[in-house]
Amino acid sequence: MELFFLGTGSGVPSKERNVSSLVLCLLEERGTTWVFDCGEGTQQQILNTNIRPRRIEVVFITHLHGDHIYGLPGLLSSRSFQGGETPVTVYGPRGLKEYIDISLRISGTHLRYPLHVEEVEEGELFEDEQFVVEAIKLEHGLDSYGYILKEKDKLGELQPDKLKELGVKPGPIYQKIKSQSRTQLEDGTIIRRDDVIGPPKKGRKIAILGDTRYLPPLAEVLQDFDVLVHEATFAGDEEEMAHDYYHSTIKQAAMLAKEANVGELILNHLSSRYQGDAVQQLSDEARTIFPNTTIAFDFYQHTIKRNQ
Amino acid sequence: MELFFLGTGSGVPSKERNVSSLVLCLLEERGTTWVFDCGEGTQQQILNTNIRPRRIEVVFITHLHGDHIYGLPGLLSSRSFQGGETPVTVYGPRGLKEYIDISLRISGTHLRYPLHVEEVEEGELFEDEQFVVEAIKLEHGLDSYGYILKEKDKLGELQPDKLKELGVKPGPIYQKIKSQSRTQLEDGTIIRRDDVIGPPKKGRKIAILGDTRYLPPLAEVLQDFDVLVHEATFAGDEEEMAHDYYHSTIKQAAMLAKEANVGELILNHLSSRYQGDAVQQLSDEARTIFPNTTIAFDFYQHTIKRNQ
Ligand SMILES: [Zn+2]
Ligand SMILES: [Zn+2]
Repeated sequence: MELFFLGTGSGVPSKERNVSSLVLCLLEERGTTWVFDCGEGTQQQILNTNIRPRRIEVVFITHLHGDHIYGLPGLLSSRSFQGGETPVTVYGPRGLKEYIDISLRISGTHLRYPLHVEEVEEGELFEDEQFVVEAIKLEHGLDSYGYILKEKDKLGELQPDKLKELGVKPGPIYQKIKSQSRTQLEDGTIIRRDDVIGPPKKGRKIAILGDTRYLPPLAEVLQDFDVLVHEATFAGDEEEMAHDYYHSTIKQAAMLAKEANVGELILNHLSSRYQGDAVQQLSDEARTIFPNTTIAFDFYQHTIKRNQ
Repeated sequence: MELFFLGTGSGVPSKERNVSSLVLCLLEERGTTWVFDCGEGTQQQILNTNIRPRRIEVVFITHLHGDHIYGLPGLLSSRSFQGGETPVTVYGPRGLKEYIDISLRISGTHLRYPLHVEEVEEGELFEDEQFVVEAIKLEHGLDSYGYILKEKDKLGELQPDKLKELGVKPGPIYQKIKSQSRTQLEDGTIIRRDDVIGPPKKGRKIAILGDTRYLPPLAEVLQDFDVLVHEATFAGDEEEMAHDYYHSTIKQAAMLAKEANVGELILNHLSSRYQGDAVQQLSDEARTIFPNTTIAFDFYQHTIKRNQ
């Protein structure tokens, strides 16, 4: 499980930072990738990575500002042109469907794969064997969402010493024992899985937020999350500006991470006003509040390890 | 007067060629630039040039395929964000207005400059002191236009020796003589401008075409043009493919240039199949038919000289 930041700037692209997009690579987990926001030029950024558009399974749009959506029609079209055939679902605020429909229709684009656009409200979006995904409301002047991914716990590993104690010999029976709660051996013995299995592998919890004002109450929702990706449009002393423009300061993001006791904080959506040394300074600012902070840059890759 | 090629690829962006856009710099002539097509990532390409979005006066869209328009909402938005205040007119096929309106509305974008979108048909678009601009219909499966720019002839230079012959002494009177057809001197003498002025400076004629099948009859319309910018999506032997996909081969573009007896042919919209040596080969192919051919590449700049 890996985060791949494609665009970490804010508002307009600069030479250093493209507009918003990041990809969660779930190749190991499900052979697919999930995209979060898709500013203009996302498909061009992807050309410089090993991300394959045909692997894209879901696109989550946090809000409809141009720097978060203007790359979507191009990415969807190119994915078709490049042979993508599996379905794609796009989640995002109301209005997204009209934007995608018109962009594809007017350009005469016929996708060769099924596209589902789901306009979201706060709450659960979907649940499968691996994940529960929810949208939470943020505050950004127009509808803006954070996406919350809760990976389900996985079964622990069979404990060979315990199996041996119970007289089970290694073989295909191991897989059977792991796959059901009770297994009857040939000699009639009943093996209960709980007796021979180690502790479960804790699922990871990841929050990827859209543009937002500082929202202290979120600390509760995000409590003990493994990773929080948060915007940091303004420097720490620009609280008023941040409030007026519906954004957060880097300090506010760090305070939220601290209050929520998350594992790691990754910051994106930086104003192009901050470059070079200024970014280092912002990073220092954040770390005095929440030490495990990283300021993302374009093409930054971040592995999300299991917390155990 | 200079052409600046920003995206010279076809269909989808590649690392070597972005999707379509080129800029005609008219800084000397009118302090502005005109943009032709605006594929995704055009504003990012511009970041690597000295083109200033605030200078953009007109955008011409040849047709509504995504690789020619998906960069338009972003460019228009960023121009506003970066302080552009002068009006912009966008010309393009029917449907363009709806696309722009919805893209800006859904993203909550309020431009700080007046934007006029004019849906075109074949014929004259506008005329001012410097230019007559026309749209001509091409053949591309959906409405596709070529834009034809005819610069007006400019007055020649005053000929000091002739003025001297007529007894006119250098001074502010020179400017007056140039500005009107007849000027009366203080001593009553009438000076006719035609008698003291050199030959007019011929205006340049430029054609920038959108995607199109080979259209031999265009040779008449484009006769003796200074510059023809033409697509070259396929190699010379792919005539059938080109026809089926409503595109041209590089040979066909060269044949049109030859028949039209243009000054220079510049080719763009190359398939990403052609790279490195293959491009050189295409270039050689074209030059056997029309020697003054250039294959454009991203960031290629081409000065359009006066033909005299
Ligand atoms: Zn934003
Ligand atoms: Zn095209």
